[in-house]
Amino acid sequence: MPVTRESRFQQVSQQLGYEFDGEIKIGGNYTPVLQHGNDVYISGQIPRVGDKVVITGPAGRNVALPVAQKAAGICVMRALALLRQHLGSLDHIQRILRLTVYVQSSADFTSQSEVANGASDILYFVLGEEAGAHVRTSIGVYQLPKNATVELELVAVSV
Amino acid sequence: MPVTRESRFQQVSQQLGYEFDGEIKIGGNYTPVLQHGNDVYISGQIPRVGDKVVITGPAGRNVALPVAQKAAGICVMRALALLRQHLGSLDHIQRILRLTVYVQSSADFTSQSEVANGASDILYFVLGEEAGAHVRTSIGVYQLPKNATVELELVAVSV
Amino acid sequence: MPVTRESRFQQVSQQLGYEFDGEIKIGGNYTPVLQHGNDVYISGQIPRVGDKVVITGPAGRNVALPVAQKAAGICVMRALALLRQHLGSLDHIQRILRLTVYVQSSADFTSQSEVANGASDILYFVLGEEAGAHVRTSIGVYQLPKNATVELELVAVSV
Repeated sequence: MPVTRESRFQQVSQQLGYEFDGEIKIGGNYTPVLQHGNDVYISGQIPRVGDKVVITGPAGRNVALPVAQKAAGICVMRALALLRQHLGSLDHIQRILRLTVYVQSSADFTSQSEVANGASDILYFVLGEEAGAHVRTSIGVYQLPKNATVELELVAVSV
Repeated sequence: MPVTRESRFQQVSQQLGYEFDGEIKIGGNYTPVLQHGNDVYISGQIPRVGDKVVITGPAGRNVALPVAQKAAGICVMRALALLRQHLGSLDHIQRILRLTVYVQSSADFTSQSEVANGASDILYFVLGEEAGAHVRTSIGVYQLPKNATVELELVAVSV
Repeated sequence: MPVTRESRFQQVSQQLGYEFDGEIKIGGNYTPVLQHGNDVYISGQIPRVGDKVVITGPAGRNVALPVAQKAAGICVMRALALLRQHLGSLDHIQRILRLTVYVQSSADFTSQSEVANGASDILYFVLGEEAGAHVRTSIGVYQLPKNATVELELVAVSV
């Protein structure tokens, strides 16, 4: 079987132990994906699988670094799944532009960048070094919707 | 009287109990509105009316959900007022692209998305479902300028 | 000697007491600068000089306003240094578009806008009022990578 973006996406799904092939649910009066020219904007994603947010609470005190990284991974897989759903295939992603990663943090937790690597590494792995390259900002926040450990948003460019 | 964006804007003003027809004051060395091509960027808005920030303190502990939603509504009306002032009319808004909503939150408050609906619902109501659709990120933060309960920023596209 | 952007940049460097002429180090699987069309995106910058984050801890309780403003100044000088490195000269910056300033804040610190002025004022001084004008959002957050007092990101337009 040839190695494709889709096969690498499925490989990451298996490693995380979740599927990202269903419809992505979004609550509220907004849209999960919006294309403007070739830019594709993705709404803030939390580590929700089906109806359940699977990783919650502040990184540091309640959630260890590898678990917070996994949360970031689930978020970015949701974003990739939305891009695939919108564009028809992961191959229509020309590149990722920007990634903002919000990490619910306990007072003394300062490894937000390391948490964000859990998302960045997947972008590089699935899309390759050129298309997966992105600028990034990682922030430690006090709370997130539904007590999620991580929320991230991104902007991609389509072909 | 025909129903227009302007008339719906005035209707929301009345419901909120504030006017958004004056000059919007911005402190500091930056600009409230900036247009680049057709994209129009709006600086972070807090629920300020005239000289006073009218809703302050953390959502959850001090500020109930409906009041925090009203704060989000005031912020987004300021953003719409700035767009109107810059473009000459709300009719020159082709669409809203992105909305980021920062909610000052107490430790256990996890309804940031519900607060953000207070802004998203107004965008849909005033601009309609097509032009008002936007991607959104909602975040719970520890503090905001002048102890505001909500701050939001948005990007619109002009025609 | 004629007054240029570069000479004003060097003047600010001297006032801050740090040099911004070396290579800017970025950790993790992402890129510090990314150009898409004429838009140039800069990753989140903290007040790091060489290997050391020079201003840490929450503004308010641990870090006085002028020191937090200095932190914002160091961050924005790093961003300008990255733009210079990428574009070859500060003269290739057509304008700054957006600036987002995250301020690690103690519970009662509400002067995030004043902290952000420490960055905005430098953009105006180095680039001039027209090119330095930008929309801005200032946020008070609970933690930042490596306990930095300030983190900021920006988008510029190149010529």
